[in-house]
Amino acid sequence: MSPAATGVPEVSPAAAFSDPASYRSLLHPPGTRWIDVIDQRALPHSCPILRLDSLETTARAIGEMWVRGAPLIGAVGAFGLALALDANPDDAHLARAHALLDATRPTAVNLRWALDRIRCVVEGLPLDSRADAAWSEADAIAAEDLEICHAIGRAGLALLRAIAAARPGPVRVMTHCNAGALATCGWGTATAPIFLARLEGIPLHVYVSETRPRLQGANLTAWEMRQRGVDHSLFVDGASGLLMRKGLVDVVFVGADRVAANGDVCNKIGTYDKALAAQDNGVPFYAAVPSPTIDWSTATGDAIPIEVRGDDEVLVITGRNADEGLTSVRIATLGTPALNYAFDVTPSRLVTGLVTERGTVPATPDALGALFPDRLGRT
Amino acid sequence: MSPAATGVPEVSPAAAFSDPASYRSLLHPPGTRWIDVIDQRALPHSCPILRLDSLETTARAIGEMWVRGAPLIGAVGAFGLALALDANPDDAHLARAHALLDATRPTAVNLRWALDRIRCVVEGLPLDSRADAAWSEADAIAAEDLEICHAIGRAGLALLRAIAAARPGPVRVMTHCNAGALATCGWGTATAPIFLARLEGIPLHVYVSETRPRLQGANLTAWEMRQRGVDHSLFVDGASGLLMRKGLVDVVFVGADRVAANGDVCNKIGTYDKALAAQDNGVPFYAAVPSPTIDWSTATGDAIPIEVRGDDEVLVITGRNADEGLTSVRIATLGTPALNYAFDVTPSRLVTGLVTERGTVPATPDALGALFPDRLGRT
Repeated sequence: MSPAATGVPEVSPAAAFSDPASYRSLLHPPGTRWIDVIDQRALPHSCPILRLDSLETTARAIGEMWVRGAPLIGAVGAFGLALALDANPDDAHLARAHALLDATRPTAVNLRWALDRIRCVVEGLPLDSRADAAWSEADAIAAEDLEICHAIGRAGLALLRAIAAARPGPVRVMTHCNAGALATCGWGTATAPIFLARLEGIPLHVYVSETRPRLQGANLTAWEMRQRGVDHSLFVDGASGLLMRKGLVDVVFVGADRVAANGDVCNKIGTYDKALAAQDNGVPFYAAVPSPTIDWSTATGDAIPIEVRGDDEVLVITGRNADEGLTSVRIATLGTPALNYAFDVTPSRLVTGLVTERGTVPATPDALGALFPDRLGRT
Repeated sequence: MSPAATGVPEVSPAAAFSDPASYRSLLHPPGTRWIDVIDQRALPHSCPILRLDSLETTARAIGEMWVRGAPLIGAVGAFGLALALDANPDDAHLARAHALLDATRPTAVNLRWALDRIRCVVEGLPLDSRADAAWSEADAIAAEDLEICHAIGRAGLALLRAIAAARPGPVRVMTHCNAGALATCGWGTATAPIFLARLEGIPLHVYVSETRPRLQGANLTAWEMRQRGVDHSLFVDGASGLLMRKGLVDVVFVGADRVAANGDVCNKIGTYDKALAAQDNGVPFYAAVPSPTIDWSTATGDAIPIEVRGDDEVLVITGRNADEGLTSVRIATLGTPALNYAFDVTPSRLVTGLVTERGTVPATPDALGALFPDRLGRT
């Protein structure tokens, strides 16, 4: 934890975040040169706020997953570059800071997209105005993310309304990992339709996949559902197929860390397995995709670098012990080797549609190109 | 733990089990009226032996999964009936004991099969010879299981030899849950070909799926691979698809808790997801099936009752803490609901073949009927 975080008290999410409708997971308090983020490593057992006030702390926060989620790490990365320029606005430091932040996580494209956007804005400016411009652009990225997520929510809500209209009983949504408010600047991607449906009074049941190894479903998504009063059940990743085969799932909504130009979806490990089960059981499978998650320069999912993380994420599990403290336990004998790919790729043929801020489209290059003609050819 | 277990010291597996080639997980010491089993709840952190010497303790050992694995619970159930008849050989007690043991686990058919076999043998006998006959028949069931597993191993070994002959490098096998020596009276089902290939010097790499919620892959299969010196990697269940998509897997071998007459395979939750991934990637998918696991009276997998176990198996994980003690940790907030189906059904269309003690056949009713003409029509 950053020394700067010392003295920032743990606060309730309700008190920390001023917009209860959107549930902000990142705040840049007006007039300050820092950002406050939820330390997601502590959830769901506590909800501490960390203050990030230097490039180095911000890089660590992303790399060690104090914050995670493709849209959120994009925004946090942008603020990290602003913090770097506060310390030193020259070209060499800008390049160094860009490289440091870019290297923290390889798979999600939002991070690179946001860093490039800040660099592009400040490069042509005199040194003494670069930092202010970076802060302003990072604020814009965060504000846009919130608006994009809300628009994705409205597009996905139409799908949930149609299911609700077709038959009685709750709409049963399966989700994976955390594509919630915590993964974004607010609302979430895959969860935005769910939260909007909840506000509208549509009965819901969300099947939350626990998402090994890091358990973002159990730790984060179940917690978000509880905060929002959405009926839900936690289940193990391997039960995805059975739940669909039993007819318990109406629709699957997942997030995305990077979408290739052909519509292949790179997302948290386990997503592809769910898409296969959805196809085998005729369950619609949607990925919620903010446009900054689309990598127009990557032709297919097979070209996306898949992050391999440490063995210990598989071998050691942290949770709350009987005394309410946090304890880590090892589930295999010492020396057992593990293989820990953090993401997988779902081929576009298994994806019913991509839910974007401009609406829901088939996962095809033509449909994506027609929806975002202004982005084609830009990288 | 049974009071009878008190005083049975923890011993090393090597010392406890006299047959290093087969690795026995259940022993009925000659001349005794008890059985000694490994307490699988403690693995891989320790390997205590429990002495089961009453019907009630045996029922608890099966229901609470001190022992697990379809073939093993069949054999242990048979010994449980022998213990019951030692206490009271009359018809009413026999019926009560049969019902008590049968109710412990609903999905695996081996348990019912073994209990019926014992009952069938003793029913026509005078009261004073029933218990001896039951012990003798239970011994026969255990001995046959060991032989069946060995024969499955030889049939599966032929498949592994063919892969090894086709290209250089290790044969890469994915497995799920524990269909090892621990799940049987020895050798295992899905692991028997692996152990025989290892003895033959075929280079191997086994991808061990951790198998949430109970982590039998991490706790049991990885431990067995280590005991046998088989190169392996642990991975999270959700990575099954990616590993196959990356071309890292030559063949999938799983066990079975019950196979329907049409070849549908009921096995540990998560098996169906692997079969879908195998099909999508052209990876052969085999279930290792001792004939007592085939339920000729169940037409399709959809008719198999799927056990639903407690929430806590999902919500609480036990492992070794930093002080080498066992600790249980909760991974979600208190009150988070979980849904915990213990098994799933893989449709026969996804199964490349069933590896039985009489050889490998397609998962079709005709092929099964032709292989076991003596079993057809028997329930």
